[in-house]
Amino acid sequence: MDLNDRFQIDIRSTQNKRLARLLQQKIDSKTKPLGALGFLEELALQIGLIQKSVSPRISKPTLLILASDHGITDSGVSRYSKKITYRVVLNFLHEGAAINVFARNSKLGIRLVDVGVDHSFEGTLTYWLHHGHKVLSRKISMGTRSFLDFPAMTTAETERALAIGQRLVQDESQRGCNTIGLGDIAVGNFSSAVAITCAILEMDAEAVVSEPAPSEEMKTTLEVVGKALRKHPKTHDPLTILALYGGFEIATMAGAILKAAQQRMVVLVDGYIGTVALMVAHRMAPEVVDYCIICQHSGENAHQLVLDHLKKRAILGLNINLGEGCGVALALPIIKNSIGFLSDMSSFDEAILDKPID
Amino acid sequence: MDLNDRFQIDIRSTQNKRLARLLQQKIDSKTKPLGALGFLEELALQIGLIQKSVSPRISKPTLLILASDHGITDSGVSRYSKKITYRVVLNFLHEGAAINVFARNSKLGIRLVDVGVDHSFEGTLTYWLHHGHKVLSRKISMGTRSFLDFPAMTTAETERALAIGQRLVQDESQRGCNTIGLGDIAVGNFSSAVAITCAILEMDAEAVVSEPAPSEEMKTTLEVVGKALRKHPKTHDPLTILALYGGFEIATMAGAILKAAQQRMVVLVDGYIGTVALMVAHRMAPEVVDYCIICQHSGENAHQLVLDHLKKRAILGLNINLGEGCGVALALPIIKNSIGFLSDMSSFDEAILDKPID
Repeated sequence: MDLNDRFQIDIRSTQNKRLARLLQQKIDSKTKPLGALGFLEELALQIGLIQKSVSPRISKPTLLILASDHGITDSGVSRYSKKITYRVVLNFLHEGAAINVFARNSKLGIRLVDVGVDHSFEGTLTYWLHHGHKVLSRKISMGTRSFLDFPAMTTAETERALAIGQRLVQDESQRGCNTIGLGDIAVGNFSSAVAITCAILEMDAEAVVSEPAPSEEMKTTLEVVGKALRKHPKTHDPLTILALYGGFEIATMAGAILKAAQQRMVVLVDGYIGTVALMVAHRMAPEVVDYCIICQHSGENAHQLVLDHLKKRAILGLNINLGEGCGVALALPIIKNSIGFLSDMSSFDEAILDKPID
Repeated sequence: MDLNDRFQIDIRSTQNKRLARLLQQKIDSKTKPLGALGFLEELALQIGLIQKSVSPRISKPTLLILASDHGITDSGVSRYSKKITYRVVLNFLHEGAAINVFARNSKLGIRLVDVGVDHSFEGTLTYWLHHGHKVLSRKISMGTRSFLDFPAMTTAETERALAIGQRLVQDESQRGCNTIGLGDIAVGNFSSAVAITCAILEMDAEAVVSEPAPSEEMKTTLEVVGKALRKHPKTHDPLTILALYGGFEIATMAGAILKAAQQRMVVLVDGYIGTVALMVAHRMAPEVVDYCIICQHSGENAHQLVLDHLKKRAILGLNINLGEGCGVALALPIIKNSIGFLSDMSSFDEAILDKPID
């Protein structure tokens, strides 16, 4: 599939022994027992390596919220209908969504992007624009097709979504943003994510989801995903898998991750959906994982499997399952503190700790 | 022991079925799937019940950092000597400590209190006061005695520490603070905390600590705590246990927790040390746990045991073992977000989500 060639960007590993040693020396020079800041020390090291600096900085952190619809939603895999995707977008424009609250508190910029919501925003948007909000229109179509019947996305659509993600990141980078978050508003995308997880990890839906008391929607999801996996050809190609099971927002995220890594930006992945997009990007260019920070663990078994596969660990484990990039906003203060201790704590040689007193 | 009577403050349970129902209705009315904000919803409910309000607020959050020394430190239970406690205090005054960075980022006020540092701050403090920092002097003595030889604190000292904690909280409450954090700077207090854990949970030190590859200091700690537990009489009285194994800062925290609960304040407990202080207070007045939020899990088995005993769960699990109240500062933005979604997210009845569109 020549898509792989087109989007397989040359991504450098962040590995750099000399810089890693310098960063570790700086971390260890701080006035604390060795390793006492735990995960914050790992984050400081990771971000330093991404930015090739012993004094990394978070600049204009921005969350891309990708809104889109899924054909599979009509099969009853979610408690909600497609209409809800559009209404959640309106709620966001109205400043009434959880992410509005959390992003305001952590000074996280937001760009809401329509990549395939099953509603035309023409007209309504004029009102919202007037109030200072907007939806960036990058609509690919009015939602994906149901992966029960067809591939969710055509090759051209998949390609377009990836390119949109790349371009969005490029634009933010040019505005001086060096830290990009990824969130989603997309009813039904849990099913897409499970199908992609099954296809890439070569596992059954039951083994991936593994819930002790599945809800009706979850039972439907398992059934639908199982059926789709039997229907479509097995493949190891990540872009074919992505096209088969879809998610314009997942494909856009994958493109965004690839571009951000190429630009040496820090990528803040929210929860399960974002981690699945990372898994797809990882199959295209394994080095991308070094650029990504997983902000929260959704608490789902499926998420843990993908994290284990990628050898990643989430910052927060608050059992939040809302999407919208909420985890990015909630984890950002902790990420800033990891940079903060590296720059602002005193080191033993400059502190009074080791000097004679009085 | 009449100490128990003197400090057993009448603390009301936060349980209130009607208010809990109203709070849960408000949480469930928000524009999100039921339960989708996970632990944040539990925090919002807890804080609402503490403040007897469906619109709780965090006002002037303040961290009490209690600095003190431990006689047991001379037995080699820590990599550090007592001198380090004093020097960490100086580093804090110099704004070079981790907690300076984290508290600044999360707008958390700090009061540093000397309850028993093995150093006289007279003289040096004039300089720091001049620079706008200070140490509140509530010194009980120049550190506790070694619990290998004697009870770490006398009855009078224990009583004094509890009273200091109560008074500190009372003062902050009068300043308009409704959320009090507790942190510590006290080399050697891990041993005290382990001894108290063993005495209250009636377990062996080895079972409490349970490390696969203990360091030299840890081996010494296990030995020293085991010896002390065999030497001192077994008792179920929490204040006798507290006096035996000490920690002026642990006793001060226990007093602070009791008072804060009586004042219906939110208590932010940092890590293992603070949770042990809570366990002592809990033995005196079980209702205190309802007022406490555990900010971080230290990653230690001992902490998990105490959390299980108190049926509490920590917000963060970042493997941070620094004390100073770092977890309080790191978790505060998340706690604020729990209040934030309750007040600022739109509800289904006010949102455009349920209304006809266009």
